[in-house]
Amino acid sequence: MFLTRSEYDRGVNTFSPEGRLFQVEYAIEAIKLGSTAIGICTSEGVVLAVEKRITSPLMEPTTIEKIVEVDKHIGGERLNLYSRTMIDRARVECQNHWFIYNEKMSVESVAQAVSNLAIQFGDSDDDGALCRPFGVAILFAGCDEKGPQLFHMDPSGTFVQFEAKAIGSGSEGAQQSLQEVYHKSMKLKEALNSVLSILKQVMEEKLSSTNVEVMTMTPERKFHMFTKEEVEEVIKDIA
Amino acid sequence: MFLTRSEYDRGVNTFSPEGRLFQVEYAIEAIKLGSTAIGICTSEGVVLAVEKRITSPLMEPTTIEKIVEVDKHIGGERLNLYSRTMIDRARVECQNHWFIYNEKMSVESVAQAVSNLAIQFGDSDDDGALCRPFGVAILFAGCDEKGPQLFHMDPSGTFVQFEAKAIGSGSEGAQQSLQEVYHKSMKLKEALNSVLSILKQVMEEKLSSTNVEVMTMTPERKFHMFTKEEVEEVIKDIA
Amino acid sequence: MFLTRSEYDRGVNTFSPEGRLFQVEYAIEAIKLGSTAIGICTSEGVVLAVEKRITSPLMEPTTIEKIVEVDKHIGGERLNLYSRTMIDRARVECQNHWFIYNEKMSVESVAQAVSNLAIQFGDSDDDGALCRPFGVAILFAGCDEKGPQLFHMDPSGTFVQFEAKAIGSGSEGAQQSLQEVYHKSMKLKEALNSVLSILKQVMEEKLSSTNVEVMTMTPERKFHMFTKEEVEEVIKDIA
Amino acid sequence: MFLTRSEYDRGVNTFSPEGRLFQVEYAIEAIKLGSTAIGICTSEGVVLAVEKRITSPLMEPTTIEKIVEVDKHIGGERLNLYSRTMIDRARVECQNHWFIYNEKMSVESVAQAVSNLAIQFGDSDDDGALCRPFGVAILFAGCDEKGPQLFHMDPSGTFVQFEAKAIGSGSEGAQQSLQEVYHKSMKLKEALNSVLSILKQVMEEKLSSTNVEVMTMTPERKFHMFTKEEVEEVIKDIA
Amino acid sequence: MFLTRSEYDRGVNTFSPEGRLFQVEYAIEAIKLGSTAIGICTSEGVVLAVEKRITSPLMEPTTIEKIVEVDKHIGGERLNLYSRTMIDRARVECQNHWFIYNEKMSVESVAQAVSNLAIQFGDSDDDGALCRPFGVAILFAGCDEKGPQLFHMDPSGTFVQFEAKAIGSGSEGAQQSLQEVYHKSMKLKEALNSVLSILKQVMEEKLSSTNVEVMTMTPERKFHMFTKEEVEEVIKDIA
Amino acid sequence: MFLTRSEYDRGVNTFSPEGRLFQVEYAIEAIKLGSTAIGICTSEGVVLAVEKRITSPLMEPTTIEKIVEVDKHIGGERLNLYSRTMIDRARVECQNHWFIYNEKMSVESVAQAVSNLAIQFGDSDDDGALCRPFGVAILFAGCDEKGPQLFHMDPSGTFVQFEAKAIGSGSEGAQQSLQEVYHKSMKLKEALNSVLSILKQVMEEKLSSTNVEVMTMTPERKFHMFTKEEVEEVIKDIA
Amino acid sequence: MFLTRSEYDRGVNTFSPEGRLFQVEYAIEAIKLGSTAIGICTSEGVVLAVEKRITSPLMEPTTIEKIVEVDKHIGGERLNLYSRTMIDRARVECQNHWFIYNEKMSVESVAQAVSNLAIQFGDSDDDGALCRPFGVAILFAGCDEKGPQLFHMDPSGTFVQFEAKAIGSGSEGAQQSLQEVYHKSMKLKEALNSVLSILKQVMEEKLSSTNVEVMTMTPERKFHMFTKEEVEEVIKDIA
Repeated sequence: MFLTRSEYDRGVNTFSPEGRLFQVEYAIEAIKLGSTAIGICTSEGVVLAVEKRITSPLMEPTTIEKIVEVDKHIGGERLNLYSRTMIDRARVECQNHWFIYNEKMSVESVAQAVSNLAIQFGDSDDDGALCRPFGVAILFAGCDEKGPQLFHMDPSGTFVQFEAKAIGSGSEGAQQSLQEVYHKSMKLKEALNSVLSILKQVMEEKLSSTNVEVMTMTPERKFHMFTKEEVEEVIKDIA
Repeated sequence: MFLTRSEYDRGVNTFSPEGRLFQVEYAIEAIKLGSTAIGICTSEGVVLAVEKRITSPLMEPTTIEKIVEVDKHIGGERLNLYSRTMIDRARVECQNHWFIYNEKMSVESVAQAVSNLAIQFGDSDDDGALCRPFGVAILFAGCDEKGPQLFHMDPSGTFVQFEAKAIGSGSEGAQQSLQEVYHKSMKLKEALNSVLSILKQVMEEKLSSTNVEVMTMTPERKFHMFTKEEVEEVIKDIA
Repeated sequence: MFLTRSEYDRGVNTFSPEGRLFQVEYAIEAIKLGSTAIGICTSEGVVLAVEKRITSPLMEPTTIEKIVEVDKHIGGERLNLYSRTMIDRARVECQNHWFIYNEKMSVESVAQAVSNLAIQFGDSDDDGALCRPFGVAILFAGCDEKGPQLFHMDPSGTFVQFEAKAIGSGSEGAQQSLQEVYHKSMKLKEALNSVLSILKQVMEEKLSSTNVEVMTMTPERKFHMFTKEEVEEVIKDIA
Repeated sequence: MFLTRSEYDRGVNTFSPEGRLFQVEYAIEAIKLGSTAIGICTSEGVVLAVEKRITSPLMEPTTIEKIVEVDKHIGGERLNLYSRTMIDRARVECQNHWFIYNEKMSVESVAQAVSNLAIQFGDSDDDGALCRPFGVAILFAGCDEKGPQLFHMDPSGTFVQFEAKAIGSGSEGAQQSLQEVYHKSMKLKEALNSVLSILKQVMEEKLSSTNVEVMTMTPERKFHMFTKEEVEEVIKDIA
Repeated sequence: MFLTRSEYDRGVNTFSPEGRLFQVEYAIEAIKLGSTAIGICTSEGVVLAVEKRITSPLMEPTTIEKIVEVDKHIGGERLNLYSRTMIDRARVECQNHWFIYNEKMSVESVAQAVSNLAIQFGDSDDDGALCRPFGVAILFAGCDEKGPQLFHMDPSGTFVQFEAKAIGSGSEGAQQSLQEVYHKSMKLKEALNSVLSILKQVMEEKLSSTNVEVMTMTPERKFHMFTKEEVEEVIKDIA
Repeated sequence: MFLTRSEYDRGVNTFSPEGRLFQVEYAIEAIKLGSTAIGICTSEGVVLAVEKRITSPLMEPTTIEKIVEVDKHIGGERLNLYSRTMIDRARVECQNHWFIYNEKMSVESVAQAVSNLAIQFGDSDDDGALCRPFGVAILFAGCDEKGPQLFHMDPSGTFVQFEAKAIGSGSEGAQQSLQEVYHKSMKLKEALNSVLSILKQVMEEKLSSTNVEVMTMTPERKFHMFTKEEVEEVIKDIA
Repeated sequence: MFLTRSEYDRGVNTFSPEGRLFQVEYAIEAIKLGSTAIGICTSEGVVLAVEKRITSPLMEPTTIEKIVEVDKHIGGERLNLYSRTMIDRARVECQNHWFIYNEKMSVESVAQAVSNLAIQFGDSDDDGALCRPFGVAILFAGCDEKGPQLFHMDPSGTFVQFEAKAIGSGSEGAQQSLQEVYHKSMKLKEALNSVLSILKQVMEEKLSSTNVEVMTMTPERKFHMFTKEEVEEVIKDIA
């Protein structure tokens, strides 16, 4: 009686007989084609590390910017071009919040604001919303009154807080490793080493200071992007 | 002479030869993929409990918010992202009502207002209505001048008052159990235990204080979300 | 030379080679899936009775409102959600009429106004009209200067006055019975008993005071919805 | 080389390789499904008679209004719901004409105005025009300075003056009979009897005063709708 | 490698692999289904004659108006309903020209103005242009400072001046005859007789004063529509 | 793995897997169906000659205008109706330039302006741009401060300066001949004879003063269209 | 279960089951059909060289402009017509920046601005964005406060800084050669010779001063387009 699932999988707004929205599921699949990003949240702060794909030796790796500062107290990583629109929205929301309430926007509110943009994908164009599911997943690392926090948003717009989370092409193996190493009393230094050790395992290329970006978000130093030297030091540590 | 039903089931606005609208039926099917929610209405108040799906041990369950306060005297549960739009509408309606009439909006009126939004799905875009059936079902629990009440809205926008109602993936078994245990003179405490016992039976995961949200709505305490400790106590009770 | 009819039956605006509009015909079919409603018009007044489908014993039947007051002198029944939009239109028209002309709107004019809305279904969206044939049939019962009257509107927007009319899933058998029992000198009491006797025959569930709504529209009492007790009395009468 | 004609017959704007517009042709076919209407124009005035389809003995035939007054000096018949929009347009044009020029609008100008609406069917929506060929044919009977006149408009919007014309399901046989009986010196009484005799032959139901509407348009009495008694008298005459 | 031509022939805007636009070609074919029109231009003036199709003996042939006055010095024939829009445009252009420049618009400029409307068919709707190729061909006969002139516009909007031109269902045979009889020193009377002789040959019905319209455009009398008597005289002449 | 090319060739905006836009290629093909045009640029001036297709001996060849004056110092030829829109744009641009800068617009700038219009074909309708690739190629001949110049624009909007260029149905053979006869020190008279000799070879009809248009653009005489007599003289020369 | 990839490859907004957007990939393929462009960035400045395709000996090569000046300190090459829109955007952004901030826009910011335009391709038309992926790749060469820089943007809008980069039909072989010859201490003269040597290898036509454009961007001379003589000198050098 029922058709095969493929006949319902091209229209963004079409439910299949079992009640599924396939285009959203395919967008989630698109994330698994991107580079790997890993984050761990400890009581001292959050660590975020992202792989950079260097497709040519003549490429200038520093111009592939993966981790960006949303506000002084919040950072996010952008896996592809479309996340830029998302991050831009997050920045605007942060500034508006500061301007209106004279206080820092909470990490959860930032994730919420970006999610609001993401769930509009199938709605009326008149709202200025985009017509395609973004195919974007973002890790938000931030410190607010509740302390360090790590949030993950998937392409359907669902966002949930995590203690440790991996996304992208190496995410399955990485998430498994995170569950093994993570413990509640982890220190920032230990988290830093874990993140890079795991990234080293799941990356196809050899991990080096040019093909990874590392950032820590702590109550004291806020958003801190690691220099080439700092990254090399950590890599030496975990060797 | 007639084609098989599948040829009429992709257009939101297309009647089949028998007069059915298949996309609305598929949206109702989508609800059966969501987490289970159960509500019981007694003369002392309403109990609402919702399963939370914890897909990773590193996930922070408290950020998966299923039951939300619509107004001081009304609560609802949201099974997926799209219910958020619905709940937001309900909140706005409540505030408008208070502002204009200086009285609390009745539970039925809130359900009606959300239903009005839901039945627009196939209408003209110019109304700002959404183009897809939401695939959303909501349980509203509230206390107004008529006392405690429980309403259910399905994805077609139909809303009806229930004495006890279960929705989501475990709803078939749960509704059966509800019919067996429910009686008119039930006290709130008995309802509370029944709701959690039934949820315990139909959930795939083992019921614990982290994967369930419980709320009571009573004329005295209004919207009361259970703390982790309160939930654990009930679980101990029903063991 | 000609294709089978099914190739022309999905576009609302597509004529088949024989000059038929199939989507309108399918919408008429949709009515036969709804609950049964029966009306009889006598010189003393109009009787309207509608079946309520109770799909769960825990459902609160009083919240399934089938017969509604359009104005003091006019009532209508709504078989599904989409009739709500229709009835709302009828109410607005009545109030406008009163406000502008300081007289009660005639029953025929109300039916005309609702029909005007219904026939726009395939027109330009710019008129704010809906894009789908509503799949709605309505019985209007009213008393104006011409005395008691019963009108029926089908999903194509055609409205005609009837002495007695049945619609919905049991309509074929019921209309047959109406033709047998109806006579010009019928009294209201006789009409009342006939309507419920016929409804009793065609309903799948056993007729009771909870799964039926009864209303009389008379020049003296105007719109009168029967209480549970009044309904039970009639049921006893016809047993 | 060429496809069968059916591949070009669904788009309102698509020419077939032979230069035909099939949707317009199908709309003309739709007229042959409607009730029969017959008109004869004599030097004394115009006679118009239309069949009413009584699908149920409990239906109130007087509410099926087929012949309507456009202006004091012009009448038209409406075969289905969509002609209502056409007739409404004709009425507005008549009133505007009176208001602006202080003279009665000629019958030809009224037919022209309605035709202008009909030929817009495939044009841009921005003109507020309807997107579907109306599937409407209208007979206009009127008396202006040129004397009594009968005009016919078909669904393509073409209008032509006729001495006698039949449309609807019985039109083929009726038009044949009209050609046999019509002569230039016909009196109104003779035309009246001819129209009803022919209608009697082509109608499936037995002709009676309840299933036919008769109207005469004369310079003296203008628009005159026949009462039940007047119709019965003519029927007796032709028996 | 290439598909058959039929796969590119439904979209107005679709080029076939050989660079053809089939919908325009089909519209040209549509002209061959219309009634025949013939024009001859002499130094004394232009003659235009058009066949009228009388489909019923009860039809009033005078109301089928084929040749219309655009301005005092220009006439055109309209083969179908859609040419009316074209002719209306031509009239407006003429009046505007007179109003702005206080001189008669040249025949070529009128043809140009109508052509401008015709070539917009596939353009943006925002210009208020129609979306379908009109399927219209028009013969313009006029007298301006350059003397008598005959222009022909085909459905693609191309317009060219002719000494003699036939269009419509009998055009192939008629154009052949025109080439045989036409000579530069033709007088108006000779042209008149030729036009009707040729029309007589190609028409399926017998030529009579009721099924043809004849017009001459001369510098002295301007637009002159022949009366029934004048037409009969010419028919007698050519017998 | 890949489909045949035909499956990507109907959508103006659809890339094929090899990165081609077929509708643009088909539009280029459309040019090869048009009449032949040939231009040669010498240091003394530019010669342009275009074939006119006389499809009937009764056609007035002078009204088929192929070469038009854009401005006093620039001429272009228009191969079909759609080039008219292009040429109109060119004229407006020239006048604007003169009005704003009080200097003649350069030939290259005119070609650029027309190209800007052509490359919008697949863009948003809001710009007022046309939706179809025009299927237009134009030769621009002009004299500005850089001396005589010949530009060619193809349907994709690409424009390039040429010393000699042929387009249309005979273009392949003609371009070959042009390469053989062209040399840098050519005089205008020699170019004139070459253009007509080559046109004579590639035309199906016999070259005569009625089926060709010839124009020279020189710094002294500017745009000069050849009279019938002047053309005949050249034809005699090359015989 | 899954369909072949081709079924998802025509809709710009359709994800395939593996999460790919095929139309973007096909647009990247379109670049490989264009002419070859090569750039090298040294500490002394950037060299850019682009092949010009001369399809006819009568074509004027100087009017095929491939390398254009964006601002005094930034140059770009345009491979096809659609890059013109991109370059125009870049120029406007540069001027705006100068006007608002009174400083030169950085090379990275220019690349960013153009990328912003490119990633809108699938978004709402209301933004005035284009609907088709441009099929455009651009090399930007510039000198700002960070010294000489070379950026590459691909059709998906991704831009990355390169030390040396080749694009177009010969890009694969050229990029390989660039990796072999490039070293950090390269001088501008060496880069110039390398770029032309490599272009010579990958071009199908014989390299000459007419079918190549060469530009250097240095802090001292800014944008410097090579004259025919300068190009010939380099070609002699590398022979």
